[in-house]
Amino acid sequence: MSGLTQDLAELVAESRKFVLPLDAIAIAKRGFIDAIATMLSGRNEKVVLTLCELHGRLERGGSSVLMGLASADVQSAVMINSASAHALDFDDVALLGHPSAVLVPAVLAEADRLGRSGAEAVAAYVSGYQVWAELCWRESDPLHAKGWHPTSIFGTIGAAAAVASLHGFDAVTARNALAIAASFSSGLAANFGSMAKPLQVGMAASRGVYAARLAGAGMTGSEDALEHYAGLLAAISPRGNTDRNSRIRPQERLWISELGLSIKKYPICYATHRAIDGLIELTRANAIASDDIGQVRVIFSPTQAALLRNHRPKTALEAAFSIEFAAAAAITAGHIGFEQMTDSYVGRADVQGLIEKVEIETIDTHSPNELGLALTERVIVVMHDGREFDSGEIRFARGNAQLPLSDEELSQKFHMCAQGVDWIDPDALLGKLQNLENLRATTDLTN
Amino acid sequence: MSGLTQDLAELVAESRKFVLPLDAIAIAKRGFIDAIATMLSGRNEKVVLTLCELHGRLERGGSSVLMGLASADVQSAVMINSASAHALDFDDVALLGHPSAVLVPAVLAEADRLGRSGAEAVAAYVSGYQVWAELCWRESDPLHAKGWHPTSIFGTIGAAAAVASLHGFDAVTARNALAIAASFSSGLAANFGSMAKPLQVGMAASRGVYAARLAGAGMTGSEDALEHYAGLLAAISPRGNTDRNSRIRPQERLWISELGLSIKKYPICYATHRAIDGLIELTRANAIASDDIGQVRVIFSPTQAALLRNHRPKTALEAAFSIEFAAAAAITAGHIGFEQMTDSYVGRADVQGLIEKVEIETIDTHSPNELGLALTERVIVVMHDGREFDSGEIRFARGNAQLPLSDEELSQKFHMCAQGVDWIDPDALLGKLQNLENLRATTDLTN
Repeated sequence: MSGLTQDLAELVAESRKFVLPLDAIAIAKRGFIDAIATMLSGRNEKVVLTLCELHGRLERGGSSVLMGLASADVQSAVMINSASAHALDFDDVALLGHPSAVLVPAVLAEADRLGRSGAEAVAAYVSGYQVWAELCWRESDPLHAKGWHPTSIFGTIGAAAAVASLHGFDAVTARNALAIAASFSSGLAANFGSMAKPLQVGMAASRGVYAARLAGAGMTGSEDALEHYAGLLAAISPRGNTDRNSRIRPQERLWISELGLSIKKYPICYATHRAIDGLIELTRANAIASDDIGQVRVIFSPTQAALLRNHRPKTALEAAFSIEFAAAAAITAGHIGFEQMTDSYVGRADVQGLIEKVEIETIDTHSPNELGLALTERVIVVMHDGREFDSGEIRFARGNAQLPLSDEELSQKFHMCAQGVDWIDPDALLGKLQNLENLRATTDLTN
Repeated sequence: MSGLTQDLAELVAESRKFVLPLDAIAIAKRGFIDAIATMLSGRNEKVVLTLCELHGRLERGGSSVLMGLASADVQSAVMINSASAHALDFDDVALLGHPSAVLVPAVLAEADRLGRSGAEAVAAYVSGYQVWAELCWRESDPLHAKGWHPTSIFGTIGAAAAVASLHGFDAVTARNALAIAASFSSGLAANFGSMAKPLQVGMAASRGVYAARLAGAGMTGSEDALEHYAGLLAAISPRGNTDRNSRIRPQERLWISELGLSIKKYPICYATHRAIDGLIELTRANAIASDDIGQVRVIFSPTQAALLRNHRPKTALEAAFSIEFAAAAAITAGHIGFEQMTDSYVGRADVQGLIEKVEIETIDTHSPNELGLALTERVIVVMHDGREFDSGEIRFARGNAQLPLSDEELSQKFHMCAQGVDWIDPDALLGKLQNLENLRATTDLTN
């Protein structure tokens, strides 16, 4: 027997023996830091509060909800933690979706339960990332356009792979975990913009854990559930242009080193990030005063223009999808954080004044890495006195895998997200996460 | 706002006011009887025992597992009960799948929890059936061939509709339940033949309940999650030949009355049932003695021939997919029940002797109602003395919606399935089920 499901199962079964290169460990740790940061930042969203109410029977010795706020059975905890990590759409990006919001809650909950070390948690995360990557490159047509939510589809299997690695399953048990997870893969693009989007992410993580536990208990799936002609890849394929038969090459490609993670620097739609970077830079370098600005021009893709449809936002919710607000805030505050994403900040006279000065132009180029974005974008600030400041071509947002945040910036994001969380010591937790691969047990994170 | 999701939500919201015709109530009650019968008959399958072990923390006041054997939280109970009802593939058939194995456990668990009456449970079941029917006729290409398991895909939404009806949700809440359920719809044909098949059925029921409870707690999905161009129907459609826009006509079509339920009479692959009926009839009518038979000819579709691939079965597992065994047992025992589906019966000399006398012929006609079956099939018994007994064309198996089991036969099936179950009184339970629409509370079923 050989084939994709079997190959991936062998990769998972070997994952605990594989010595990870340092760059892969460093990227995985950033995934843990970012997922826990965004999990904490999502804690007050309605989707999370409602899940807590529905699932929240406390259990002695149960799994940690929101890093120690409460505890619940393992699948409930994973559901809540993962939905919270994605609730503000502030979590990291790669592999056609959001890997860490799915993988980290699944890995931590099960690692805690099994008493696994930090190094084992990192290896499990990398396993999940690797399996996810092996699946998502095989489809050449756009899955979102067909109706699928790739994070939730591939995430279920990635989470199962990660948890299978934690359990130390042999290849047969790992194969059953992947096959059962394939049975549980779901999630629709049509539900974007509703609470069902973070729910889908929570379900992916929670069912990934469940699939692995089922396999561990002796449940079986088909040995070719992923690549079979009536298996997962064929089922979700928009037009059958899916590569079901190529062998994987784990020795040649460590996807996490190759593709990395893009970490969002600002808690606002990712389609605004390059313009924000450009305007912060221009404002700082040229000591631009808001009052002297005549016009702000943003040049990006028609898709970005369509997505960012709120041209005169009055509330923070509207502002999250407004390039005009993003530009105004970048110039006014020199930064965009949670304190800018408030109704009162959006309504400020100076911000509203600048919003009216922003003009959009579109350019029809395409980024090969980032669906819907122009290849590059550009911002130009035109002053009342006629001077023009031009960002030039901006290829990657700060935080993109190709232009990573510094450790200092990642720490800032972590602290920003953990603000007001009084059941943890953010410095201590961040310190432990930065040293995750040397942690004796993941339970030490919250102890 | 109008559209399929909204229309179905309104149907669900109205379902408690709608006065059901008697034939619909009668069919629904058969669904309850058959699902509970098969739930009991599946209780010792490995998939069920494993689920019980994994989920089986007993909870005071929890939901009933296997009609009173144990109790667990509602979603665990639904998962176990529904997987058990499908574990032997002996449960009823309609709507491209197995409606009652999904709907009945979901309805009963939530009706028990909410203290609903038998009539409300029946109305909820019909609601779930109706929504399921409205979805599955809209796709004109074969879903199984693309990779989907329609029971699990549509069942998730049907179960959510049924539970939404039980809760008495308004149209907006019911719409959110359907949209969230669409996010959770999954299940693969590639996993047929493994434990993941009944798991998929269990997941459909359990997630349907969960989706409805999430909506009841205030969670939202998109108002067009089913018919959106990136919604459920488009996502699963093999080639985009899906009708996403027709309005539903609940006043004109009560699908359950029109389509009914096909109930399996024998605990063996459905593709053998017509031949079994024919041979039992021929044997009885002509007082055929096994020893005098020279040959048994079975004429059916190439798909049936391929499916029933075990020509010389030695074990009960093999015999479940053997037309040769089915024919031999029908003639020898004049019936096929659990006592025939044992290794010792399969190995009996007279049965093995007859198995060798069975010949298969194929005919390339197609039943419009039943995927893969020939339009009709036929059995011919040729005696040593040259006489031939011919069944003629058999259009429907006994138990098919077009040729329903008598109440007496359904009771026999119930008792056969409940044999050895010592925590219920089968007569009392069956009596209550036959009177379900007059039951004060569904909890009375197990009290």
